[in-house]
Amino acid sequence: MTRIFTTDLPAHVGEQVSLAGWLQSLRRMGGITFLVLRDGWGTAQAVIETEDSLQPLTAANALPESLIRVTGTVQANAAAPNGCELHHIAIEVCVPISEAAPIPLGKRTITAGQNTILDHAMIANRHVSRRATLRLSAGIMEGFRASLRERDFTEVQTPKIVAAATEGGANVFALDYFGRTAYLAQSPQFYKQMMVGIFERVFEVGPVFRAEPHDTTRHINEYVSLDVEMGFIEDHHTVMAVLRAVLHGIMATLQRSYAADLAVLELALPAVPTEIPSIHFAEAQTLIWRETGQDVRSEPDLAPADERWLGAWAQRTFGSDFLFVTGYPMRKRPFYTHPDPARPAFSNSFDLLFRGVELVTGGQRLHRYGDYLAALEHAGLAIEPFAPYLETFRYGMPSHGGFAIGLERLVMQLTGVSSIKLATTFPRDLHRLTP
Amino acid sequence: MTRIFTTDLPAHVGEQVSLAGWLQSLRRMGGITFLVLRDGWGTAQAVIETEDSLQPLTAANALPESLIRVTGTVQANAAAPNGCELHHIAIEVCVPISEAAPIPLGKRTITAGQNTILDHAMIANRHVSRRATLRLSAGIMEGFRASLRERDFTEVQTPKIVAAATEGGANVFALDYFGRTAYLAQSPQFYKQMMVGIFERVFEVGPVFRAEPHDTTRHINEYVSLDVEMGFIEDHHTVMAVLRAVLHGIMATLQRSYAADLAVLELALPAVPTEIPSIHFAEAQTLIWRETGQDVRSEPDLAPADERWLGAWAQRTFGSDFLFVTGYPMRKRPFYTHPDPARPAFSNSFDLLFRGVELVTGGQRLHRYGDYLAALEHAGLAIEPFAPYLETFRYGMPSHGGFAIGLERLVMQLTGVSSIKLATTFPRDLHRLTP
Repeated sequence: MTRIFTTDLPAHVGEQVSLAGWLQSLRRMGGITFLVLRDGWGTAQAVIETEDSLQPLTAANALPESLIRVTGTVQANAAAPNGCELHHIAIEVCVPISEAAPIPLGKRTITAGQNTILDHAMIANRHVSRRATLRLSAGIMEGFRASLRERDFTEVQTPKIVAAATEGGANVFALDYFGRTAYLAQSPQFYKQMMVGIFERVFEVGPVFRAEPHDTTRHINEYVSLDVEMGFIEDHHTVMAVLRAVLHGIMATLQRSYAADLAVLELALPAVPTEIPSIHFAEAQTLIWRETGQDVRSEPDLAPADERWLGAWAQRTFGSDFLFVTGYPMRKRPFYTHPDPARPAFSNSFDLLFRGVELVTGGQRLHRYGDYLAALEHAGLAIEPFAPYLETFRYGMPSHGGFAIGLERLVMQLTGVSSIKLATTFPRDLHRLTP
Repeated sequence: MTRIFTTDLPAHVGEQVSLAGWLQSLRRMGGITFLVLRDGWGTAQAVIETEDSLQPLTAANALPESLIRVTGTVQANAAAPNGCELHHIAIEVCVPISEAAPIPLGKRTITAGQNTILDHAMIANRHVSRRATLRLSAGIMEGFRASLRERDFTEVQTPKIVAAATEGGANVFALDYFGRTAYLAQSPQFYKQMMVGIFERVFEVGPVFRAEPHDTTRHINEYVSLDVEMGFIEDHHTVMAVLRAVLHGIMATLQRSYAADLAVLELALPAVPTEIPSIHFAEAQTLIWRETGQDVRSEPDLAPADERWLGAWAQRTFGSDFLFVTGYPMRKRPFYTHPDPARPAFSNSFDLLFRGVELVTGGQRLHRYGDYLAALEHAGLAIEPFAPYLETFRYGMPSHGGFAIGLERLVMQLTGVSSIKLATTFPRDLHRLTP
């Protein structure tokens, strides 16, 4: 009999079907045993009324996580997980497992501590709640790509082994490249700009590497960056409009195609307003000062507490989970940042706050060769390491800008997991290289 | 006036429109000047009948690759590139470039040598033929993902910094990871198998790194791998059927959405047969021996010449560009390969040849914990470095298998570029780390 997925059960009420998957749990209640089978998409309950039906499990000494096939008749039951369950079943054991898994997967929530979960991530990630969290990553990538393709963006893949640290900075992993020192890309920034010279509108989904020696709930050393860069923009507001559309596309994709995962997590997605409210950095500082008495006006950046306050302010003023802060001071932004022509100490850049936490950074970049030479000189950086990057501008680049979304950070903020390490399959941190 | 793309010109015949992009060339023929503008999607021709119209270019000393806007009236002209061209134009110079580009981009073909092209890839890739070649990568990724999502596969992103070399082998880049030695992933093999335990059917598009010290037209040291892995397979034939569907999906996507690039390259895509012909490794060797007199029957693998011969044989016998070779000897396959139960010296694996060159490798993997312990012992490999990988099998894995397609190799074989280094934006090879 052809196997069907657990998620297809409701379409087969009254029929005999065959399921395959992992034995998730076996629960005896009086004379009846409830078996839960998990496959790659969901779970299904089978009702066992005779000891005979259990015999294949008993004979094989099959504990949870054994691989099984269950054949039976689908009956509607509003109280059962999918509104239906299997009766009159026959079990076949494909791969018996006789050792208890290091993480119990049969309970509704996962009870192990974070280190145990991460040490056994290959098993812990099988838990329906972990799996739903991780599957949202796939939905985010899908929505990200779809909304950009609709807008004539081309997907690119750029090198991760590079000759120079992207922003001339520290926190970069070095490696031996056939006798030379090379580095792992901290971001595809330079390459996505070069690609604007080729395709004009580009995006990339790929790993980035940061050798930051911090052990916090917000740090991992390898993460997935969703990068966008586009040419012929008016200024950073053109980029912000694309970001708004992309976020809307991501949420629409999750709502449409990942509803089962949202249901498992009991998650309501944030609404992305048609126009995301926006405040200039200087205005934001003045507002905080006026409303809280805290004078932050001479600070070059917003502190996390400022961002939280602004997030709450956007929520109560506009009913929005999202808030753009624009015009960060030039001195806190990387050398390729485009200044605000009207107020050159401020930049044509933005951060997007989501519920008071920075989610996206972006802005307009310099695009004239002469401006790059001046900016590097101003930053005290040598020109030579940037020569290939500069060549792009030397031979003609349009006004352009872009942004980057950290995939794991978005998953963390959407789901509310307590650490970014729980927002990815196999995190890399200061202490962790396995699994 | 709102800008339109060059590719939208035919929809605006008789209207006044504005284009923006790079000045690709300026050609005087008698009293008339033909200007070609290139944007991110195509090119358009403008006809200049008066010196006045050229004045903005002359005044700015604007050479090719200057950024310009051209406003004019669209007229149909069957002889022009898109079947139409701009007349009565006005030119605005956005960014003047007064230095000749290191690679001339105005000719139909790119004439520079390979090293010059690669040294100036950020400029050379702007050439319409290079760009069309590179854009096929985006189409391949798009078709790959779409056909897998249709088949209930989930996209994953797995770590690229790993604690141990994937197959216990050499040719791996080492890096310092906070005082420990780590490696760059040579493939997501172990992780995609672990993810089968979670989502059952997974795919990944991501970089892989091979420290192979070879300088040939077939080697690059960082490439993009299109990886697939799936659970509950019958054997490798289940995987081969998915691969066939994926290839069909890729070609259909290219045909549908990348027709302009195929036209630039004057490329006809191969037909993917409903059933790709297949021959067992041992039969293939016997066939070569019988037909060519060359006795290769004791060889553990097929030589490139054997593959070319088999490719030609598949072409003349089945009219197919594709040929599966199945059942490679176990001793030439990695330790996790599943043997053929009926002939244990041979494996449940396959290579897919495309026009006589290996394009894809795949097969069924071991899935029982005990089989892994035995396979590692047989291969003389220690168990300890594989402990996290083995834990996956210890706690229940279904029969499974998968394959990997090298993105650049596929682009190379489809387009016929002379080196794999020309099948990617910014290649990494033995000598090249920039751009």
